[in-house]
Amino acid sequence: MANEHSHPDIADAMAAQQREISVSEFFLKNRHLLGFDSPSKAALTTVKEAVDNALDACEEAGILPEIRIEVSNQTDDSLRIAVEDNGPGIVEEQLGRIFGKLLYGSKFYKLSQSRGQQGMGIAAVGMYAQLTTGKPLHILSRVETEPTATELFVSINTAKNRPEIHKKKRVAWDCPHGTRVEARIDGNYQQGNHSIGMYLKQTAIANSHVTLHFQGPHGEQWDHQRSSVELPHRPVNVKPHPRGIELGQLIQMLSNTQSRTLLQFLENDFARVGRKTAGKIIEESHHNLTARSYPKRIAHLQSQALYRAIQKVPVSAPSADCLAPIGEQQLEEGLRKEVDANFYTVLTRRPAVYRGNAFQIEVGLAYGQAAGAHLELDERGHIHKTVRQPTHAKPELEPHPDEPAFLLRFANRVPLLYDQEGCAITKAVLQTNWHAYGLDQAKGALPHAPLVILVHMASVWVPYGSEAKEAIAPYPEIVKEIRLALQCCGRKLAIHLHHEARVKDEFDKRTHIEKYLPHVGIALQQILELSDEERERVIKRLDDVLQEKRRL
Amino acid sequence: MANEHSHPDIADAMAAQQREISVSEFFLKNRHLLGFDSPSKAALTTVKEAVDNALDACEEAGILPEIRIEVSNQTDDSLRIAVEDNGPGIVEEQLGRIFGKLLYGSKFYKLSQSRGQQGMGIAAVGMYAQLTTGKPLHILSRVETEPTATELFVSINTAKNRPEIHKKKRVAWDCPHGTRVEARIDGNYQQGNHSIGMYLKQTAIANSHVTLHFQGPHGEQWDHQRSSVELPHRPVNVKPHPRGIELGQLIQMLSNTQSRTLLQFLENDFARVGRKTAGKIIEESHHNLTARSYPKRIAHLQSQALYRAIQKVPVSAPSADCLAPIGEQQLEEGLRKEVDANFYTVLTRRPAVYRGNAFQIEVGLAYGQAAGAHLELDERGHIHKTVRQPTHAKPELEPHPDEPAFLLRFANRVPLLYDQEGCAITKAVLQTNWHAYGLDQAKGALPHAPLVILVHMASVWVPYGSEAKEAIAPYPEIVKEIRLALQCCGRKLAIHLHHEARVKDEFDKRTHIEKYLPHVGIALQQILELSDEERERVIKRLDDVLQEKRRL
Repeated sequence: MANEHSHPDIADAMAAQQREISVSEFFLKNRHLLGFDSPSKAALTTVKEAVDNALDACEEAGILPEIRIEVSNQTDDSLRIAVEDNGPGIVEEQLGRIFGKLLYGSKFYKLSQSRGQQGMGIAAVGMYAQLTTGKPLHILSRVETEPTATELFVSINTAKNRPEIHKKKRVAWDCPHGTRVEARIDGNYQQGNHSIGMYLKQTAIANSHVTLHFQGPHGEQWDHQRSSVELPHRPVNVKPHPRGIELGQLIQMLSNTQSRTLLQFLENDFARVGRKTAGKIIEESHHNLTARSYPKRIAHLQSQALYRAIQKVPVSAPSADCLAPIGEQQLEEGLRKEVDANFYTVLTRRPAVYRGNAFQIEVGLAYGQAAGAHLELDERGHIHKTVRQPTHAKPELEPHPDEPAFLLRFANRVPLLYDQEGCAITKAVLQTNWHAYGLDQAKGALPHAPLVILVHMASVWVPYGSEAKEAIAPYPEIVKEIRLALQCCGRKLAIHLHHEARVKDEFDKRTHIEKYLPHVGIALQQILELSDEERERVIKRLDDVLQEKRRL
Repeated sequence: MANEHSHPDIADAMAAQQREISVSEFFLKNRHLLGFDSPSKAALTTVKEAVDNALDACEEAGILPEIRIEVSNQTDDSLRIAVEDNGPGIVEEQLGRIFGKLLYGSKFYKLSQSRGQQGMGIAAVGMYAQLTTGKPLHILSRVETEPTATELFVSINTAKNRPEIHKKKRVAWDCPHGTRVEARIDGNYQQGNHSIGMYLKQTAIANSHVTLHFQGPHGEQWDHQRSSVELPHRPVNVKPHPRGIELGQLIQMLSNTQSRTLLQFLENDFARVGRKTAGKIIEESHHNLTARSYPKRIAHLQSQALYRAIQKVPVSAPSADCLAPIGEQQLEEGLRKEVDANFYTVLTRRPAVYRGNAFQIEVGLAYGQAAGAHLELDERGHIHKTVRQPTHAKPELEPHPDEPAFLLRFANRVPLLYDQEGCAITKAVLQTNWHAYGLDQAKGALPHAPLVILVHMASVWVPYGSEAKEAIAPYPEIVKEIRLALQCCGRKLAIHLHHEARVKDEFDKRTHIEKYLPHVGIALQQILELSDEERERVIKRLDDVLQEKRRL
């Protein structure tokens, strides 16, 4: 079978070439996986990773976040991006690893909601800066207990995935506590739906407790003031929920547990399993398993039986402790503040589970073109035609009648701007029958209506479609929950549209009356020989009577 | 600013939670990144990773590949997948790391075309097996110089990303050299466009030197015999091409080089840079750079100048040595063998570069519905209507008149079955104006025609959109090359379609003649009082004359 190329030692020769691959080198070569495929996307990713970290740190420390974002063009054509927060600061010995090592962080092994989860983002920014401009990250950080801040420059030794620290020193900083990170990258500052401005605007919608100050490269400058001084409920760390865990995970948990009996194991190592449920699971397992079985000695066949029993016995839904959804009130306030529309409806669903991970879906709809003319009923039932003026200080985000609905996707309060096609949220929106709620929709497309659709997934672990965290992987349990939430909001929208159609009808009738009444008045004046004053009084009276009648 | 949650030591408390994240744990939690999101995709990914490795090993060792794939359902509802090759085998000390450690391999640091490149795939299969069934991979491997094979079971210690080897022993194996890997996974064997069968069929199209034996879980069994005994040209390892490298990469190369002068560095460390081009680059750089500058001492500003000069000075296109395209002849043979159509056209473009990486695009089109009736001109110019019978032994892949074109995507001879939307190939096909070549096409859609479109990207480094290697990231240079190749094949298709329209026209005329000639014959017989024989002779003569005239 072997031809002339082959020689007996080939296996040895091939073995000699095998080597370990540094995780940094891997992502350096695959930087598009981390969101650095193009200069404009790289600029957005840089802001996003820094802002997400800043928000996580502030919230964990119980501080209301105030964040400054500065973007400026440099003479060498590179982009300088600086993000400064008022967070708790980072202790000096950690600074290098946090900014100069991939796969390092505090959030990966926790089961509680946070923006970051992979320990990758900000170090990836540093790696990209290094690759494209050769400049290390410039860091300034001060913790409250220290009189001065630490300043340092950090780059990554990609061969070893280790930080390299340059010029570290203590400096005075008038900020009492916080962190500032500055990157010089090959980047492109652009406008539009994938812009830094759009990301910040959407961040404000989902985080009404955040104050943002933005400064762009062309002199743009705007602030977003927080509308709430309440921090999101701080999510607690939970144990895995038994629903949907996998056999291999169960086997690993059995072998790692501190519990000395199976009953204890089920009670202690899972969320929502009490003594009674644990007993039922053991009973359902058979295979010689008892409450007192020693977890580490459970054989493979027995663990399979246990696994099946766990899937069979009903367990209550996960608690909401580990999650921090936006909440219906703040979601609606956020939408009203940032999206000019006529009609708003929101919904926060109860927590659900996919693969043992708790998650919660929220949906908001904003309908109608507020910037144009529209009709309103006042408290007396009278109709007004009003025109609202749009404001252009910040990037605009409005329902538009000539375009498909505008979809806003969020995961753990972070806007997702790229890869809309691959996202569980998009799948759920496309699967929803918007016709049923009175909207136009082509097959397999977004509804065609002046509509903004907002969907938020809060979870202890968001299954992102890539390391760049741009889309949610379409696990069926997640798509289903989103669909249910959309349907519920869709029904409320349908009621509004029905009402709107009725108002329109009223308005048309009213217009008719207004059109003909003066002629009726003139006719009556001639027949009854009324004075002009009497004629006006009669018309007024007639108008009131007709209006009254129609309202009954 | 700090509210009641905050306390001065919060930064220390947060620092204490920071830890290193194991790369295995990262991918275990994110297994959808590696192609294991659903049981049916997991089954395909398992076969694909094992077959890709087998083909790479055989070709590197100069062995014509013969591969057996067995899929069977187990009593515990799991799927057993075994892949066996006649490759060179793997030496015993490497077996554990190759199958039980992520980011370990021989292909990552090379710049030459291979199927695997990340050192991830097969270990990921093991990790998924472990997670879903708790079973380790079962390996058998023999190298030619050993009298027996090594058998072992290997699982991954995910916390440490290290192999754990069980029950290793030497066993007799009648195969003189090769490797067999068997996995027990939570998988689903399905039919259709994303099936294992479709993957193997497409593998055969792009690899005519491969023999495959398949055995499915429901008694399916088929073989694919190689049609060529020629191994692909063995790609050599090359240096980076200067076109499109990045500043950071250049800085790293300068600091790692063995060369003692800038001139040597440019000549030795890049592909396609000779003394003359190197001299021109140095001249173009200014900034006190000379041929004798010591590379490791080049300052940041100087390296920027050098970088700009490299982008400015023309460098010849990369050589084809490092690439192993399928080639026009084998591509057309592969298409003809596996796709029944009327018309075939193929093209292999010359090598191009994106970001310093050489790549080459190949395109094949197969048009027309061969399984149904179709028209043919014989060498005399006479028209025949023929009907070909489809064969159903293997999964079918035919151009279909009522459906959009069928797109076959390949990267380094490996079929890409998932994530069609996100792929550079799909983008290029959608951007192509198929109307211009006589086909129907809705806006932003695949052309609607009985057409199979095959696109292959061969590269020293394919920028996959995810670790699961299902799509090519749409770098502009790549999309452009694909579009140019499609346009060229499209023009050939247009000529064929024009010709086909003419043949159809001929056929219609011929049909008319055939219809009326007998009547003419009868009329002549009556007028001239001919015998039946004379009438037939006259008709025959008339027919010949008319045919002759039409052909002039």
